[in-house]
Amino acid sequence: MRVAKVAIAGFGGVGRATAMLLLSRRERYLRLYGTEVRLVAVCGSRSGLSDPNGLEANRLDTLQAGLSGPDFVAASGADIVIEAGPSDFRTGGPGLAYLRAALTDGRDAITISKGALVHSGRALRALAQVSGATLKISGATAGSLPTIDLIEHSLLGCTVLRMEGILNATTNYLLAAMTARGIGFDTALREAQAGGFAESDPRNDTEGWDTASKLLILANFGLGLDLAMDDIVVEGIHSVTVQQIAAWQADGLVPKLVGSLALDDGTARADVGIRTYPLADPLAQVRGKNKAIRISTDAMGETIAIGSGTEPIATSAAALKDLEHILVARAAPRL
Amino acid sequence: MRVAKVAIAGFGGVGRATAMLLLSRRERYLRLYGTEVRLVAVCGSRSGLSDPNGLEANRLDTLQAGLSGPDFVAASGADIVIEAGPSDFRTGGPGLAYLRAALTDGRDAITISKGALVHSGRALRALAQVSGATLKISGATAGSLPTIDLIEHSLLGCTVLRMEGILNATTNYLLAAMTARGIGFDTALREAQAGGFAESDPRNDTEGWDTASKLLILANFGLGLDLAMDDIVVEGIHSVTVQQIAAWQADGLVPKLVGSLALDDGTARADVGIRTYPLADPLAQVRGKNKAIRISTDAMGETIAIGSGTEPIATSAAALKDLEHILVARAAPRL
Repeated sequence: MRVAKVAIAGFGGVGRATAMLLLSRRERYLRLYGTEVRLVAVCGSRSGLSDPNGLEANRLDTLQAGLSGPDFVAASGADIVIEAGPSDFRTGGPGLAYLRAALTDGRDAITISKGALVHSGRALRALAQVSGATLKISGATAGSLPTIDLIEHSLLGCTVLRMEGILNATTNYLLAAMTARGIGFDTALREAQAGGFAESDPRNDTEGWDTASKLLILANFGLGLDLAMDDIVVEGIHSVTVQQIAAWQADGLVPKLVGSLALDDGTARADVGIRTYPLADPLAQVRGKNKAIRISTDAMGETIAIGSGTEPIATSAAALKDLEHILVARAAPRL
Repeated sequence: MRVAKVAIAGFGGVGRATAMLLLSRRERYLRLYGTEVRLVAVCGSRSGLSDPNGLEANRLDTLQAGLSGPDFVAASGADIVIEAGPSDFRTGGPGLAYLRAALTDGRDAITISKGALVHSGRALRALAQVSGATLKISGATAGSLPTIDLIEHSLLGCTVLRMEGILNATTNYLLAAMTARGIGFDTALREAQAGGFAESDPRNDTEGWDTASKLLILANFGLGLDLAMDDIVVEGIHSVTVQQIAAWQADGLVPKLVGSLALDDGTARADVGIRTYPLADPLAQVRGKNKAIRISTDAMGETIAIGSGTEPIATSAAALKDLEHILVARAAPRL
């Protein structure tokens, strides 16, 4: 019987939800892929726990101080690392060290946070190439919304001409509240923060950086481009006024924060900013914290996906979809 | 260098478009998969052509009478068969013999027509299982709309609870025309037939059988069920009246012909019939000949896909996506 030993680095809400979902699916993995999936290590920034025989759910509340970092993960014997730490595209975040170590050593890696992919995507891909490790990124490209899946799998063979995405839940929620109730950005933000729908420092979302990060990762990993953050014109939603919203509404238009990419003869133009859609456009109907993407290709026309998973489990499920594709590949018959 | 020898059985509009698209992508296949893809045979119901060195586009108008059938395809040396003949779910259609022969002999098969999959899906899967051949069905499950892809790839690991799909372009077009212009079914149908948007015998579409076929294939191939046509309650759009449409419109509802499946504790309820959606539902905004599907799962909530490819090339591109996944698998490094 095959054994897959998984470590989860980054143990906040998503990391923990991923651990619980993984443990609940072990019988499935055994049945479908003949693989015993063992959770051999988890760690946050300062504490962790490992056991070569596998951790059960009841031990995940008793992390030990000092057990953390790439060396800890390597010592756990994991052969698959799920990276679920905080995202920082300016430094790569803590995920960068975990991913670098994993891919250098030939461990397969599944990343949920975006920072390392934005900061050092090309270098990480090169490391994976050399070691033969797999790097999966569904959780970092709008979670349960199929985005990289569409490009790499469903539209395979077609040339992508354009894509546009409502990729950030917080800004979609804020714009919807502003539009539905005629309130200003500051009021909508305060209410969202009070309800737990926006971060206390919301700028990564509201200024468009989260959307830009996802767009960049899709462009570089999905389309083979080599964009840097500086190549993307990024505007957020913080300067949208009540008057603008009212004017759009009068015209039957719905504002969305959209990341867009257009390709002409290999040249990419990428930007993040407000776009307005008529009500008859399915993108206008992407409500609340939902997300969506529209991809135009030469042979398949326009393909739209709209996702409405509940966090954190939906993003955990996206990461475990990646895990399952790794298990599929490992279990494939060798011809 | 690897060589993949492709035969196309069924050479109407879609078969021919598939041949042309395949020939135009040969450089891509060589570059990405190190595989020379040769079109070694094409045939319709009464004529065909084969050449072990590969056919070029200029020879596809000079088919020879009598070259057709499973033995012709086998003799061509093809190791991948694309089946693009007419669909007949009551008999399996001509595709059944081609698929049976291919899968028995271990040739990989890509099917675009639905008849054989509805009629003998379980038997064909069993043949593939025994011989180790691959059977791909994207083209038979709403073409370029990602449907089976969502179930098998993007939502992998999740439990499907419900799905509902606008899976037939003709009925969506007819209902849209009836709604937009207040005309009756017969008038809309005559106009669509005159414009080439509906078959001269439209009953397979308008009575819901095409939708039911796709729903059944998704259920049996995607979800591992074992439905027969008799298990699906099928209603069409031919009895929808001008008065009904007007009443729905007054209530802000849009009628769609929808195939639905609900799963409760492993028990499936499947039906095809009119459903009405409020304008705020993205499914209400699926226009003209577009198609859509909504799939609800335990961990990822609702995922919607909307597709708007132009036929026949969009369906050809779906079949060649399947081809490319076969090439990917064949080119994968053997661990």
